[in-house]
Amino acid sequence: MTGPHPAVAACRVAVRDALGDLELGTRVWVACSGGPDSLALAAAVAFVARKQGLFAGAIIVDHGLQPDSAVVAERAAHEVRRAGIHTVHVERVTVGRAGGMEAAAREARYAALEARMDAEGGLDPLLVTGHTMDDQAETVLLALARGSGARALSGIPSRRGRIVRPFLTVRRKDTLAACQALDLDPWHDPTNVTEDGPRRSALRTKVMPSLVEVLGPGVVSGLARSAALLQADADELDRQARSAMTVPSSAARSDEWRCDMLAALPDAIRTRMLKMLAENKGAGPLTATHVSALDSLVMQWKGQGAISLPGGYEARREYGRLVISHPDHKERPQ
Amino acid sequence: MTGPHPAVAACRVAVRDALGDLELGTRVWVACSGGPDSLALAAAVAFVARKQGLFAGAIIVDHGLQPDSAVVAERAAHEVRRAGIHTVHVERVTVGRAGGMEAAAREARYAALEARMDAEGGLDPLLVTGHTMDDQAETVLLALARGSGARALSGIPSRRGRIVRPFLTVRRKDTLAACQALDLDPWHDPTNVTEDGPRRSALRTKVMPSLVEVLGPGVVSGLARSAALLQADADELDRQARSAMTVPSSAARSDEWRCDMLAALPDAIRTRMLKMLAENKGAGPLTATHVSALDSLVMQWKGQGAISLPGGYEARREYGRLVISHPDHKERPQ
Repeated sequence: MTGPHPAVAACRVAVRDALGDLELGTRVWVACSGGPDSLALAAAVAFVARKQGLFAGAIIVDHGLQPDSAVVAERAAHEVRRAGIHTVHVERVTVGRAGGMEAAAREARYAALEARMDAEGGLDPLLVTGHTMDDQAETVLLALARGSGARALSGIPSRRGRIVRPFLTVRRKDTLAACQALDLDPWHDPTNVTEDGPRRSALRTKVMPSLVEVLGPGVVSGLARSAALLQADADELDRQARSAMTVPSSAARSDEWRCDMLAALPDAIRTRMLKMLAENKGAGPLTATHVSALDSLVMQWKGQGAISLPGGYEARREYGRLVISHPDHKERPQ
Repeated sequence: MTGPHPAVAACRVAVRDALGDLELGTRVWVACSGGPDSLALAAAVAFVARKQGLFAGAIIVDHGLQPDSAVVAERAAHEVRRAGIHTVHVERVTVGRAGGMEAAAREARYAALEARMDAEGGLDPLLVTGHTMDDQAETVLLALARGSGARALSGIPSRRGRIVRPFLTVRRKDTLAACQALDLDPWHDPTNVTEDGPRRSALRTKVMPSLVEVLGPGVVSGLARSAALLQADADELDRQARSAMTVPSSAARSDEWRCDMLAALPDAIRTRMLKMLAENKGAGPLTATHVSALDSLVMQWKGQGAISLPGGYEARREYGRLVISHPDHKERPQ
């Protein structure tokens, strides 16, 4: 008797490592597109769940963006059942246009996945997604190209809240090989629009192959390892910045912060703290450019005026203090 | 009357920002290869030095790796004088083979540059190099491909000791444009072996163009901005790790560290501290893989044996303590 195909074994090990210590009977929901990664994930979750007494189900989201999307979703459901998961829900969503097609599709998808998971109940259910090491490497490159800091460069978290990503240590080609070994028939989205968008698609088909050609195949795992190291850094520095904000001190008076106290903090802590201060006030997510402008009010003060922040907020320096406010909120206090 | 060409102006601004607060008469030595970046740097340093009362000189290293290298060096010296720097030293070095051609050439080059700077004397002299934003972006990509942490990903430091790199904010094409505008004739090294090596060359000619094509021209400045952010993170976390090591505590007994105390530290601090502990003992520079093996002795203890570290050192866990030692040093104590 021979063991399973190496790619199948690698997928199972990754899932076991991620789900190894769950309570008996925990519900594990596979977010499934029908593509090779999520189909291989469904098969591995079915296997591990059987061994460890977990409940495995799958949720397929039909984004309704192509005329035949309902057919594609039903076909995916059929393959997921063949992969060994018998409870399969297909959720039809309406994708808006706010923030671009990819972002809107992602938001609608996760909302539907979480809603179905909640509706099904159970104690501490988990959602698992099929993001691979290749997705991770692409995410890191995209964040680098934007000039992001450690948090964005740390890529896709292996766990966030109820969402777990067991395949961040698995190569995409191995998920395809696992499907082939298990005689599963994955769906290859010709448009790639719901998951990836054209930029990521081009990165995958043009940039990554030339990186691998020049630097060797280890570049994908290299990018993923860097991401994991930066995740530990970002976790620690974010924790310290949060802690610097909550310590009762003379630095803050009614949400205004003394610039000399801020200036005495290390750059890595101060810039994170400035981002948190503005975002806690209600300003939309700040980019590195916003944070840099905010920091120059503290560190390179030459009498400059207020700077604009997302969501109509502004920041200015007044009598040595940093003040972040919204012009409308002053006149109409809530 | 018109101002200087925009590329010339950009080079001068970058040099002024880097050298703006030097004492009158400070000696600034340009490390010059004769290529567009270092030639544009020589011109900008000559201009700024004249304005600010600094002394500007140039040092050209002849690596002796090509038959005509002495001719190339003399030609570079000629162009540097035309760029406005009249004190020019040509240093002939012998490049070994240890650690590969690029590394050996780099080591011989910096040794010769520093030796000449020391021989010429003066108070707090500086060496400036022509590394550009493009060099920085390539360095970050190479570090990513190796799976490095924040320190290596932060790329080339804008200042380290007596070495300053004013052009990390300047694009390579602008240094070439500045040379053209000033009618300077830069040397294009057909082999690129002394500065760059074949991997970096291929990265430059194959990968970067496809990155720019897919993600737009902002990708180079994005990579450089990420590097700067990570530099602040690495500085702070390294500082904290050093401080955790020097605090007198019951954690250490004659260089042996209690694993339970180490395990209680945040990942980002502990992994840096483990690297420093081993390197302070004398083990060669540790890669991310070594650090990860060392960390597993602390965090994933399953009775595993000693692990090997560079330079013949080994690390093992004994009675809950981490011990790093060199087998030879035990028998022949120094």
